[in-house]
Order: sequence, then C-alpha cells, then structure tokens
Amino acid sequence: MSPWKAARPGDPASAVDTPALVLDLDAFERNLQRMAQALRGTGVRLRAHAKSHKCPEIARRQVALGAVGICCQKVSEAAVFVAAGIDDVLVTNEVVGAAKLQRLMDLARQARIGVLVDHPAQVRALAEAARGAAASLDVYVEVNVGANRCGVPPGPEAVELARLVAASAPLRFAGLQCYQGPAQHLRAPAQRAAAIAEAVAAARATREAIEACGIKVPHVTGGGTGSFQLERDSGVFDEIQAGSYVFMDRDYADNERAAGDVAFEHALFVRTTVMSRPSATRAVVDAGLKASSVDSGMPVVWQRPELSYLKAADEHGTLSTPVGDTPALGDALLLVPGHCDPTVNLYDDLVCIRGGTVEALWPIAARGALL
Amino acid sequence: MSPWKAARPGDPASAVDTPALVLDLDAFERNLQRMAQALRGTGVRLRAHAKSHKCPEIARRQVALGAVGICCQKVSEAAVFVAAGIDDVLVTNEVVGAAKLQRLMDLARQARIGVLVDHPAQVRALAEAARGAAASLDVYVEVNVGANRCGVPPGPEAVELARLVAASAPLRFAGLQCYQGPAQHLRAPAQRAAAIAEAVAAARATREAIEACGIKVPHVTGGGTGSFQLERDSGVFDEIQAGSYVFMDRDYADNERAAGDVAFEHALFVRTTVMSRPSATRAVVDAGLKASSVDSGMPVVWQRPELSYLKAADEHGTLSTPVGDTPALGDALLLVPGHCDPTVNLYDDLVCIRGGTVEALWPIAARGALL
Repeated sequence: MSPWKAARPGDPASAVDTPALVLDLDAFERNLQRMAQALRGTGVRLRAHAKSHKCPEIARRQVALGAVGICCQKVSEAAVFVAAGIDDVLVTNEVVGAAKLQRLMDLARQARIGVLVDHPAQVRALAEAARGAAASLDVYVEVNVGANRCGVPPGPEAVELARLVAASAPLRFAGLQCYQGPAQHLRAPAQRAAAIAEAVAAARATREAIEACGIKVPHVTGGGTGSFQLERDSGVFDEIQAGSYVFMDRDYADNERAAGDVAFEHALFVRTTVMSRPSATRAVVDAGLKASSVDSGMPVVWQRPELSYLKAADEHGTLSTPVGDTPALGDALLLVPGHCDPTVNLYDDLVCIRGGTVEALWPIAARGALL
Repeated sequence: MSPWKAARPGDPASAVDTPALVLDLDAFERNLQRMAQALRGTGVRLRAHAKSHKCPEIARRQVALGAVGICCQKVSEAAVFVAAGIDDVLVTNEVVGAAKLQRLMDLARQARIGVLVDHPAQVRALAEAARGAAASLDVYVEVNVGANRCGVPPGPEAVELARLVAASAPLRFAGLQCYQGPAQHLRAPAQRAAAIAEAVAAARATREAIEACGIKVPHVTGGGTGSFQLERDSGVFDEIQAGSYVFMDRDYADNERAAGDVAFEHALFVRTTVMSRPSATRAVVDAGLKASSVDSGMPVVWQRPELSYLKAADEHGTLSTPVGDTPALGDALLLVPGHCDPTVNLYDDLVCIRGGTVEALWPIAARGALL
C-alpha cells in the first residue's frame, strides 16, 4: 500500500492528494435514509450487500438504520465484518473446499452465518463440517431465476435440494436465494420489470412447491439497487440485498428510473489531478484503471459534461476537452466510477468529506479479501 | 485484506486456497534470464518496469541480473522500492502538486530518482522543490512518439523544454522518455515495426536537435515487452522499460512474434476453484473481476482449451464447457490473466511455486500505491 495517506482528518477537501477515493458524507447519509424509508412498513427487510463497500463503518450505519445484517461474497470478507462486530452475515455464494468450510464454521460459532448451495455435494460437505465443528448455520438454496450463473433451476430440483438441507442437521434450511444480477443493469424500466416478473414467478413457484412438501421457506432473498423496488412489491421476497445504493456509480445512474423509483445520489468519487495538458483538446489525469475500475465502462467527470474520459491506462486517464486551456495542469477533478464495487476494492481508505473538510478516513478493511 | 493467507511455505501447490495469485518460479526465472540474454552485449540496459509486479523481491532479482534500476509509475510506488533498497528509480510520469513534489524530493535524497516533464511549469515546480529540499534528480523530457497520451511533440517544443531543464539547476537533464504504449499490443510484427520505426525516427530527430544546441542527451529510454527488440536494435534507445515480460499475460501472448523475438512464458496464474456446476455446459469459478482484471479482456484457462471463460462478475467467473461433468465441482484451474499489471494490484502476496510446493510468499508491497 502507499506509505502515506491521501489526507488526514481536518484537512481541507481541496488538499486531498490524488488519486483518492472520496465519500460525500451528506449524500451517503441521504442514500442510507432513502433506502430505509423505501422499505419502512413494507415487511421487507434490508440485508445490505457489503461487497460494494467492504467497510465496517458503513455496515454499522446500515444496521443502525434497520438492516438485519449484511451480505458478503467471500468467507474472508465475512470474517472481516464478524471481527468488526456485525453479527448476521449471509455469504451469497457457494463455498467449496475443506479449508474454506472450516473457516466458515469458525465464523458460525461467533455470529449468525448463512451460505448458499446449488448442489447436493455442497450440502453434504457443509453438514459434515458443521457437525465436526459443533456449529450450525443458515443454508439457502440458490435458484436460477434468470441470471444463468449459479443456482438450480426453479421447481423440482430446488425442492429436492431444500429437502436435503432440511434433513441435514445441524444445517438450518433458511429459504431461497433468488438474485437476478443482469436485470439490475437493464436500462429501461419495462425491461427490468419483465425480467424481475419472471424471477418473482420462479421464486413463488419454487417456494410453493417446497411448502407443499411440508417444509417452511423462512426467507426469499435477493434484489439489487437496480431492481429492489420490484422485489419489495412482489409479495414473494422478504429481504433485499442491495449494495451499490450507498455510493451509486455511473453504470447504475445510466438506468432510466421508473416513476416512484428512489433517486439515489452519487456519493463516491475518485479525486484526480490533471498531470499533463499536452494539447488544446487533451488532458491526462492521474487516475487510470488502477484507480477506477473500467469493467463497466469509463468513469465520467463529475459536473463537467464538457470533459470526456476517453481511455484508461494503468495510471493515466486521457480526457478529451473543448479547445482551450481548462482544465489546467494541476487542476483537481472528481470522477464518478463506472462500477463502484471493484473501484472500492482498489483502495485502503475512504476519505470522508463534509462541508469542504475531511471528517474521517474509514478503512476499507475487507479490500482484497478474496478467499 | 484477507485475515488469512492462501498458503504457507511448504504447503503442496495443490492445497493453495483460491483465488490466489500464483508465480511459477521456474518459468519466472527463465523469463528473467531471457531478457538479460536479449540485452547482453548490446549496450542497451534494462530499467525494468515495476508497475507490473509491485514486488521488491522481483525488483532485487532484476537488478541482480543486470538491470540498472527500475521504473515506477507513482511517487508512492517508488517510495516502497526505495525503502526496500532499490537505489535507482525512474518515475515514468509527470508529477504535479506540492505534496507529491515534496515526497519526490525526500526520495531524491535517498536514491537516484528520475521523473518526466512535458510542460515548463512542471520544470519550474521541480526546480523550486529541489532547491528547497537541497536535492537533485534526473529529469527526462517526455516526447509523444505516437502514443498520443502525455509528452511534448518531437522537435522544437522538446528542444525548448530540454533547454529549460538543463538551465534549471539542481535538476539534471537526463534525456528523453519515448514510450509507445499502444504499439506494444499491435498484433502483427509488421504493425509493431512500423509504429516503432516512427517512434525511433521521432526520438532520433529530437535527440539530434537537442544536441545541435550543445546539450548532451544522456539517455533515450522506452520500449515495452511487446516492442523492446525494436528499440534495442534502433541505435537510438539505450534503455528498455519492459515490465510484463516477467509474468506474461493473455494480452501479450496474443501478439504474433516476429522471427527472433524472445519467447517469454506464462509465469503468473490465478488459481481458482469450480464452486458451482449448474449445467452440463456451464461451470462457475471463484475468480471474477476482483481476482483477474478484465480491462484487456477475459482470462484464459491454462492448458484447458476446451474451457472458455465467458464472463466475469465481481467474484464469479462463468465458463462454458463441453457437454459433460468436467471440470467437476471443487476442481482447481489456473487462469492466465488478461492483463497482469492490474491483476497483481488486486493481491497482497504472490504465492511462489516450484516443483509442486509453495516455496515462498512474496509481498506485493506496492499494491495500491496510487499516490
């Protein structure tokens, strides 16, 4: 990591060294409030996805505002949050291999832990590890509701897997994981509505088929920042896994909002400096693809629509500019990352800003927790 | 970071937890030897680019085999290597801002440090900072030899800037940075040869124009893994900045080699596990875009041409497979990353393997050194 930090609490925001990952605390707090408000009184709870932020300071604030707990994507990520005091963590992934299962059971003795399965062999391995560790945990059957990634097909195969989990003490059958990832980024509200309607129908039919066998389905969990209002209103889902809403990124902002959709704000920025101004129509900034992940496309320059971030190299970002000399060499700009999750994973700290001053640095404690 | 490591020295390679960044030490050492051999007796020296590996253990081995020093892309990255004992570091970038210049001068009092300029204001700021710090450093004029990123145009503007540097004690005018980045990835040898021929012509003309003013041009530096044999044989360049050759990635391997081009081997892999096998033609591995950067395209599965890595999500990689049940749930695979530099930057350690055993873990000490 860098031998020094980009800023210290109390510094003026204008003095933050670059590139740095900056959190606008006022916008961030409004995003947290808007999500809490959107779920209040609906009977649907939030299990915020921590893969977006990897930051215990943020998880604590989500729980304080009503989230039942968090999701993580990896066992080691979950371990960071359990160590930070988060006591209800769902690993929204299949976990395979004896070493990982042992780590998972260590966590299950310290906190309420959940995990996904989509194959009988995973259930058998989990049950054996849980018995060996004298631990118990929540097991969700992952159903492929249209994402075509992991998950068993809706219907009979999911029923069989749920039966196996329910019969595999000390595992607890906790319900269905029904996340439709690609639907989050369909641009038109009607496209998202159609994709989630299919996911809801698959989830409902699977739940009913399991319950017809006399097995209770405690939870149906899923939904993300792009679609959660549809799952919330479905009558089937009782838990939402949105993560990116705390920050918002360019990719989510590119979605057209339906009437009634919550308007989250950009709260996360990459602060960058113009380090070269080689021509009247080109500026080069010090934030490249090691500072802002480009897997979902280029970042945009915040509130400077005349500037286009054209191309990212490792540590260079090339901007096209109108003919002229602004931005000037040395000017600072803010970028809205294309995709917040992998961008956050590039940094050790969030530089938290309020009213033009650095209020705090929050460690991105689960940065790089891949195992 | 992860609260535990993927492996310990002495573990069998087959027990390395996933995803992990694995270095095949034998292949890596052959790559180091091949580069040393390719430059031996040519009068052209290697200044290996450390942005690819960010690992002092590797830099030390490059210097031991004859490299004059290393390149870094950031001041904080350079600081990590200076602290590790590397005493000759060129920051192949413009450095802007008082805080960064102060850090640069701190380094210049401990080691031989170089930096680039492409604007008179940078020269003035460097000279002022150097005088204030009673430090001196090497300053290279960056020339745009076809990359169209940073750099002054070849010819008169470069001459003016060189004059200014030469007149700005305690700065030392050290020569010309002439790196043609996009040429590294042109697939056909003839395309690369044409692009580098233009770069060489621009570098030569600029050097001659500066020398015609009575200013010595100590070095012309540039070249990368894709093109370095052309710069080596140009009669103009005396220093090569290749970095990726130590690892090789899918993108570089996609280049067609010219007759006589050095054949570097894949030495860097992402070890991953099949965590879901949801259909007869789909497998999902635990290495997604937080484990293998996709900015230059998807990774490939090592020595398994029948498997295609189709799509990366944060922590999932979706593979298409021939109809059947291999790879099986729990199987380990090796991926060759699309782009080694940003992939290395995702990890805290290189797991170094030889003869089926973990020989060492090498810290990626400059991971995340963005400032």
